[in-house]
Amino acid sequence: MADQPDIAHMRRAVALASRGLGTTSPNPVVGCVILDADGEPAGEGFHEYAGGPHAEVNALRAAGERARGGTAYVTLEPCDHTGRTGPCSLALIEAGVARVVIAVDDPNPVASGGAERLRRQGIRVDTGVLTEAAEEGNAAWLTFVRRRRPYVTWKFAATLDGRSAAEDGTSKWITSAEARADVHRLRGEQDAILAGIGTVLADDPQLTVRPPRGRPPLRVVLDSEGRTPPGARVLDAAAPTLIAVAAGTEVAHADVVRLARTPDGIDLDGLLAELYRRQVVSLLVEGGPVVAGSFLRAGLVDRVVGYLAPALLGSGAAALGPAGVTTITDTHRLIFHEISPIGPDLRFIARPAPPKETDVHRNR
Amino acid sequence: MADQPDIAHMRRAVALASRGLGTTSPNPVVGCVILDADGEPAGEGFHEYAGGPHAEVNALRAAGERARGGTAYVTLEPCDHTGRTGPCSLALIEAGVARVVIAVDDPNPVASGGAERLRRQGIRVDTGVLTEAAEEGNAAWLTFVRRRRPYVTWKFAATLDGRSAAEDGTSKWITSAEARADVHRLRGEQDAILAGIGTVLADDPQLTVRPPRGRPPLRVVLDSEGRTPPGARVLDAAAPTLIAVAAGTEVAHADVVRLARTPDGIDLDGLLAELYRRQVVSLLVEGGPVVAGSFLRAGLVDRVVGYLAPALLGSGAAALGPAGVTTITDTHRLIFHEISPIGPDLRFIARPAPPKETDVHRNR
Repeated sequence: MADQPDIAHMRRAVALASRGLGTTSPNPVVGCVILDADGEPAGEGFHEYAGGPHAEVNALRAAGERARGGTAYVTLEPCDHTGRTGPCSLALIEAGVARVVIAVDDPNPVASGGAERLRRQGIRVDTGVLTEAAEEGNAAWLTFVRRRRPYVTWKFAATLDGRSAAEDGTSKWITSAEARADVHRLRGEQDAILAGIGTVLADDPQLTVRPPRGRPPLRVVLDSEGRTPPGARVLDAAAPTLIAVAAGTEVAHADVVRLARTPDGIDLDGLLAELYRRQVVSLLVEGGPVVAGSFLRAGLVDRVVGYLAPALLGSGAAALGPAGVTTITDTHRLIFHEISPIGPDLRFIARPAPPKETDVHRNR
Repeated sequence: MADQPDIAHMRRAVALASRGLGTTSPNPVVGCVILDADGEPAGEGFHEYAGGPHAEVNALRAAGERARGGTAYVTLEPCDHTGRTGPCSLALIEAGVARVVIAVDDPNPVASGGAERLRRQGIRVDTGVLTEAAEEGNAAWLTFVRRRRPYVTWKFAATLDGRSAAEDGTSKWITSAEARADVHRLRGEQDAILAGIGTVLADDPQLTVRPPRGRPPLRVVLDSEGRTPPGARVLDAAAPTLIAVAAGTEVAHADVVRLARTPDGIDLDGLLAELYRRQVVSLLVEGGPVVAGSFLRAGLVDRVVGYLAPALLGSGAAALGPAGVTTITDTHRLIFHEISPIGPDLRFIARPAPPKETDVHRNR
């Protein structure tokens, strides 16, 4: 039926949106395709950087007068508030668009209401079109808005038997140059990068993006007792650094957050709340094993990116420390999202599995 | 040039050969394609089962009189000895074939000499055509003949952090039903399956192929101190069982091999020599971690097949125990040969990496 939204246009809008990944934080990525009254493509646009014009505005500019009587496909409900730019709902109304097709409703209470305003103006609004694919592209931002905490990615590199260093502590290099370059690409997409004090003391990492691109991610050190050495590379001038210590711990560093002690260490929810306050939409947890285990145990890992080298150690440090599992049925179950070769290594991307059907039945 | 062998025909012969995988042991897999004098395909065949006709004989039968003046593409040098069947070199000569193209020279001193006999009869012989692909298909048999020991595959199943059981010892099931079915397919291709006494005592596995196919693989228990319980499932009537004990150990079981003690356990070379004597071409080592570590340390693993479940444990038994590595440069380096999804899990097949170029330079 000609009356049904055409998901091909929404697919194009989702592809446009993804071009903003890494530069729009703390805003979502958004793509927009405008058709004229005859259904012919008239303009397209995406949100390129925080503070820049929204996707709808870029697309309307491209379409010009041809937008009148036409249809707008947009991956996220048009905003209805005036931030650094005016409300997109008004822009669509003023351009005379007759119909708006939306993939994902805006979960942000400050900005939502755009669809409602459009409808009040007699514009036809369809929602829920290609929602899953559009949510996928905005996973970090949606987690940030819905859960009021950053989207957490745990990244690790290990051998096929799950080890990240040999018995004598050596670990350079388990994975290939290609895999290490890919880690820098991944870092470049993040607002913050976190490491535990164990990793800082053992490896003295700089936790920066090489080569640098855009605003450098905030470096976060999880350091209950305030043991980060003043000369640690993580404290150099290359990027800002936040040290998270337990309440009552004294530390010379300027930017410190003090967190409650918990039976498992320190209050990670409190840390994520602080990062949320700082508009950190995405956080990369780089380890080591103790930190990774704490985030997993707390249910605070949204995505796992693992680099597995085709190698076997048989002894040495495990990539993952105790994560609150004692029996097999409590395993942290994931679902593979992607498995790809990176140079001679293997990279997987996995996400927590939804609760099992049996668990759901149990609640009926 | 019309005079050059056409590798497309050899590729077909290699594909034919692979149809014999799992049923020809202790013989190699072999495929053969016959062209008539005009270069048109006249017949093809493969070695189907030990004791059955060789590939050349099957192909010559299919070609009949058209073989005269024609060309035979064969994946392995035609045999020159009379075993359960007559020499293939003679069969090709009698059929009047004018040219024979060979992928892999026969490394078996008893059977080789076929190419030489053909040449003496004035038949043109080309060798070394598509050798790598043909060797790939016969990897197990070539290792058996060249190294006088079985081709050893280590199979393991683990979480992404390399663990094969939770803290309390539970492990059912880390991998999916699909992965477990694939393990039975893999077992079905083997002449013998080995487990350590630790695995026998902990899991009481039957080590059989389900559903059964062909001759059941020999079960081998690595059991230095002779602790296999008389009621263990591995001793049931479903398949023959060999128990490998340390010299001087008394055990009630009928089929026992006694091996010298070594600093690392017991003499695995001695075990493999015994299996070679029994015409075990392929051995699947199923663990546990101590056994796997011993085989790796001894350099006796030809292939690793790993099933990785999208799951994280953080504690519990490691899939691989000490394997003789103390520093990162001594890591057992592999090369991925294949990575594929099996149900929700990931399966990889990897092989030991050849010595690094730097190591080679060192010897110059």
